Amino acid sequence: MDLAPDAFARDCASRVVLDRIGDRWTVLIVVALSDGALRFSQLRSKIEGITPKVLTQTLRALERDGLVTRTVFAEVPPRVEYELTDLGRDLLAPIDAIRVWAEDHAARIVANRERHDG
Amino acid sequence: MDLAPDAFARDCASRVVLDRIGDRWTVLIVVALSDGALRFSQLRSKIEGITPKVLTQTLRALERDGLVTRTVFAEVPPRVEYELTDLGRDLLAPIDAIRVWAEDHAARIVANRERHDG
Repeated sequence: MDLAPDAFARDCASRVVLDRIGDRWTVLIVVALSDGALRFSQLRSKIEGITPKVLTQTLRALERDGLVTRTVFAEVPPRVEYELTDLGRDLLAPIDAIRVWAEDHAARIVANRERHDG
Repeated sequence: MDLAPDAFARDCASRVVLDRIGDRWTVLIVVALSDGALRFSQLRSKIEGITPKVLTQTLRALERDGLVTRTVFAEVPPRVEYELTDLGRDLLAPIDAIRVWAEDHAARIVANRERHDG
C-alpha cells in the first residue's frame, strides 16, 4: 500500500492544498507579506482591486492552514497584523516562481489568445 | 510610466495568467504531459476524478493559451494527442514545484485545519 501523497489520486489531500496555494489572491497575499508583517489596510492597498470581503476570507483560510498568523496588539484602536508563519515562508519560493512566470509570459499568452480567437 | 507587468496592479494581464496556471486541473494536466504526448483517454485515467467536461474545457483553455497542442492523426478511428508546447514545457518547472509542495505539506496543512476547527 502506497501512502505517499499523490496529487493524481482522486481523494488525495494535496489537491485541496493545490486549490489553496494556486489561488490568485493567496499568491498575491503571500508574496505581499514576504518583507514582513502588514496590516489589513496595507495589504488592501498593496493588492489593487481585492475586495475587503475576499481579503478577509483569504486571510482566514491562510490562518486556518497555518500559513499566516494574525496578531492583535492591545492599542487604541487595536492594531492587527498579518505575518507569514515558517510554513508560509517555506511556500514563498514556489509561489513567487509562479507569480514571476505569470508576469514574464503574460504578454505572450494574451497574444496567443488573440491569435486563437481571431 | 512603468510598463512592466505587475501582478499587484489591478488590470495586469498577469492576473489572468495566474488564474490559469494556478488552477488545480492545469497543474495536473501539465505535469501529466511532462513525459510526452497523451490521448484524451490516457489523460483521463491518469488524472483520477477529472470529469470529461472539465478535461475538455481545461485542454481547450491550455490550447488557446499556447501551452498545449492538439494533433489529430488521420487514422480510423482518428487518434487525437495532446502535447506541451515549448511555452508549456517552460511552465513545467514552476508548476511542478507547486505540486511537490502541495504533496509534501498536505498532511501538515490538514492537521493545521483540524487543530484550528477543533
